[in-house]
Amino acid sequence: MISLAEARGLDATDPLRGFRDRFHLPDDIIYLDGNSLGPLPLAARDAVRATVHGEWGNGLIRSWNDADWIGAPARVGAKLARLIGAAPGEAVVADSTSVDLFKLIVAALRLRPDRPVVLTEVGNFPTDLYVAEGAVRCVTGARLHTVEPEAVEAAIDAETAVVVLTHVHYKTARRRDMKRLTALAHATGALVVWDLSHSVGAIPLDLKDADADFAVGCGYKFLNGGPGAPAFMFAAERLHPSLASPISGWMGHAEPFAFSDAWRPAAGIERLLAGTPPILGLAALEAGVDLMLDADMATIAAKSAQLFDVFKGLMDERLAGRGFTCISPVDAAERGSHIAFSHPNGFAIMQALIARGVIGDYRRPDILRFGLTPLYLSYADVWRAVDLLAEIMASEAWRTEAPEPQGGSVT
Amino acid sequence: MISLAEARGLDATDPLRGFRDRFHLPDDIIYLDGNSLGPLPLAARDAVRATVHGEWGNGLIRSWNDADWIGAPARVGAKLARLIGAAPGEAVVADSTSVDLFKLIVAALRLRPDRPVVLTEVGNFPTDLYVAEGAVRCVTGARLHTVEPEAVEAAIDAETAVVVLTHVHYKTARRRDMKRLTALAHATGALVVWDLSHSVGAIPLDLKDADADFAVGCGYKFLNGGPGAPAFMFAAERLHPSLASPISGWMGHAEPFAFSDAWRPAAGIERLLAGTPPILGLAALEAGVDLMLDADMATIAAKSAQLFDVFKGLMDERLAGRGFTCISPVDAAERGSHIAFSHPNGFAIMQALIARGVIGDYRRPDILRFGLTPLYLSYADVWRAVDLLAEIMASEAWRTEAPEPQGGSVT
Repeated sequence: MISLAEARGLDATDPLRGFRDRFHLPDDIIYLDGNSLGPLPLAARDAVRATVHGEWGNGLIRSWNDADWIGAPARVGAKLARLIGAAPGEAVVADSTSVDLFKLIVAALRLRPDRPVVLTEVGNFPTDLYVAEGAVRCVTGARLHTVEPEAVEAAIDAETAVVVLTHVHYKTARRRDMKRLTALAHATGALVVWDLSHSVGAIPLDLKDADADFAVGCGYKFLNGGPGAPAFMFAAERLHPSLASPISGWMGHAEPFAFSDAWRPAAGIERLLAGTPPILGLAALEAGVDLMLDADMATIAAKSAQLFDVFKGLMDERLAGRGFTCISPVDAAERGSHIAFSHPNGFAIMQALIARGVIGDYRRPDILRFGLTPLYLSYADVWRAVDLLAEIMASEAWRTEAPEPQGGSVT
Repeated sequence: MISLAEARGLDATDPLRGFRDRFHLPDDIIYLDGNSLGPLPLAARDAVRATVHGEWGNGLIRSWNDADWIGAPARVGAKLARLIGAAPGEAVVADSTSVDLFKLIVAALRLRPDRPVVLTEVGNFPTDLYVAEGAVRCVTGARLHTVEPEAVEAAIDAETAVVVLTHVHYKTARRRDMKRLTALAHATGALVVWDLSHSVGAIPLDLKDADADFAVGCGYKFLNGGPGAPAFMFAAERLHPSLASPISGWMGHAEPFAFSDAWRPAAGIERLLAGTPPILGLAALEAGVDLMLDADMATIAAKSAQLFDVFKGLMDERLAGRGFTCISPVDAAERGSHIAFSHPNGFAIMQALIARGVIGDYRRPDILRFGLTPLYLSYADVWRAVDLLAEIMASEAWRTEAPEPQGGSVT
């Protein structure tokens, strides 16, 4: 078992230790929820301020050109592409993950008009399932087929148009083998849409190597893009010419400012854009992505793995017999960047932690999640978090927490 | 013809004169483009700062509940409802105008499954046409029928499922008679989706009195919600129970945080929500809406009409014989809140104006638009703008401007 002094020793030689000072983190908080909402990068604070005061306040309408607001979806997309192993013209930032997923599922279905099935898994992130339900209603003859996670591979067949999967599971952090699954799907002629919400900025990604078709991902988790940050879409360049978004808005037009009456899609990935881009959200997200690009994903992944091992090692020693079961894969290669435990009193225990300044989150029915975010989390943070949890369990302080309400917090 | 001194006299007794100080307006600018991007309300600057620093920076994930981020789409929607004559539960803020329009056209088509036609007009705002094209592809058997503006009424028949019209035209400012057209459509059993982008915050609206079915509108024009501000949707309460959004994302679910696998729409207008709300954009928009609610729409409309008359009167006198044709209706009741002129050298003339600090905008092929925004525009501003235009035309200063490029500015 690691001591606090040893944890501090790891921090002293951590190659990422310089990044913590680039975030605003409240003094009294250990933040283990960066997998749900990343904290504020100082550069994002400054970027939003500059966008509001300088670009909106002083530049006014001129900033669409002068500050390249109009280029922001493609510009931030090109930066993001580097985090996912894509070419600059293969990613674009727009709308929310739900809306982007809708666009890509419908677009993918249209690329396989002779195949009716969208295949996904039980227990996928809920909005992915809901959106897939909605998307199949928009394509004549299409239908949704939802199978158990372990049955997905066998279920891919000649009827499958599109497989919709989350790369890293939001509860367990289980990581899908993107390359293997994509190859399997391609072998039958199917396409795959990956949800990278819990992967991007968390683990190294190489969509080109995986020969991926489509992906979406979230801007406000590991990318630290701010609450409700716009999401991104990836589409392999080979698919662009035949890609038809159901939401054919003016920003996806070949000439948005020609104001012509008839739809004509842009040549590249911009054809997936719809409405006017959300500039304030894009400014914050761009700062978050820039910050992430300053770090090395392999170094981030190595520290994430070690944070996991320290966390789990301490839990195994200090919380043994307290009812916690680690539900995350122990092999780092099969995992994203959070650690999850089930516990029958999970809700109350998480409330007790949060009340004492250790912020993780709870997911029904019994899961405690802790985000492992190497850019601003120290080994000492993890040590203190588990120490507090041990204290809460020993004192049974969690018993005084209010019962679980119907609502909950946002992933 | 009004003199500058007389214009100043009107400003001195203007009941809205106190509002100008609540905006950040650069000293050297006369801003006549608030119909395209409203300027920065000081309260929006402060709200974004508080959201970034306090709520995101310090509150972190807790702000979804503590700062009611999760309630923002409905909360801001309820405020906005007061500007359009709707009940609080009939409006919600989400996504972009294009995405919202897509949702409502598909939802409306589904309410009239035995009718195939979406009817709209030639020269409608381009994204409305593009989105309508995309929406009909998502409903089996549906098709788009686009007719000349004056032919719309006669074209509504038993095949018409949905009429999609813009209330105030983005070029001419021509205002449609919402009540009459809605009644006509209802008489044949059709529904109407109104685009209020150039109406909301510009003129008094009473959707209840018009018995309107659906509407969308833009947050960044007359509402001063900031660049790419989220848009809003209106749906009459009587339609909520049968309303099915094509983009069934988790924020539209009856229990978003139950994380259940199956889609079940929220009871009210929240069922039109899709993904996680864009919090920074919502914060700025809420400040813009709050500011607008502090003023009286009838007072705003009266000043808008008078600004128009002053503008047009000065143009008629001082720019006579210079090739300008006013293409906006002269009757205030048939108009929104901008004034537009055609001129064969419109592009170069607008560039010359902008270079000298008078910001309007240009729309192909030959239109100069000037937004009339009573909260921060003075009669003296209008006087000086026309004075500058007269100078530019007399000196032919516009002839040295670069020719029109392929691109353009954002509406």
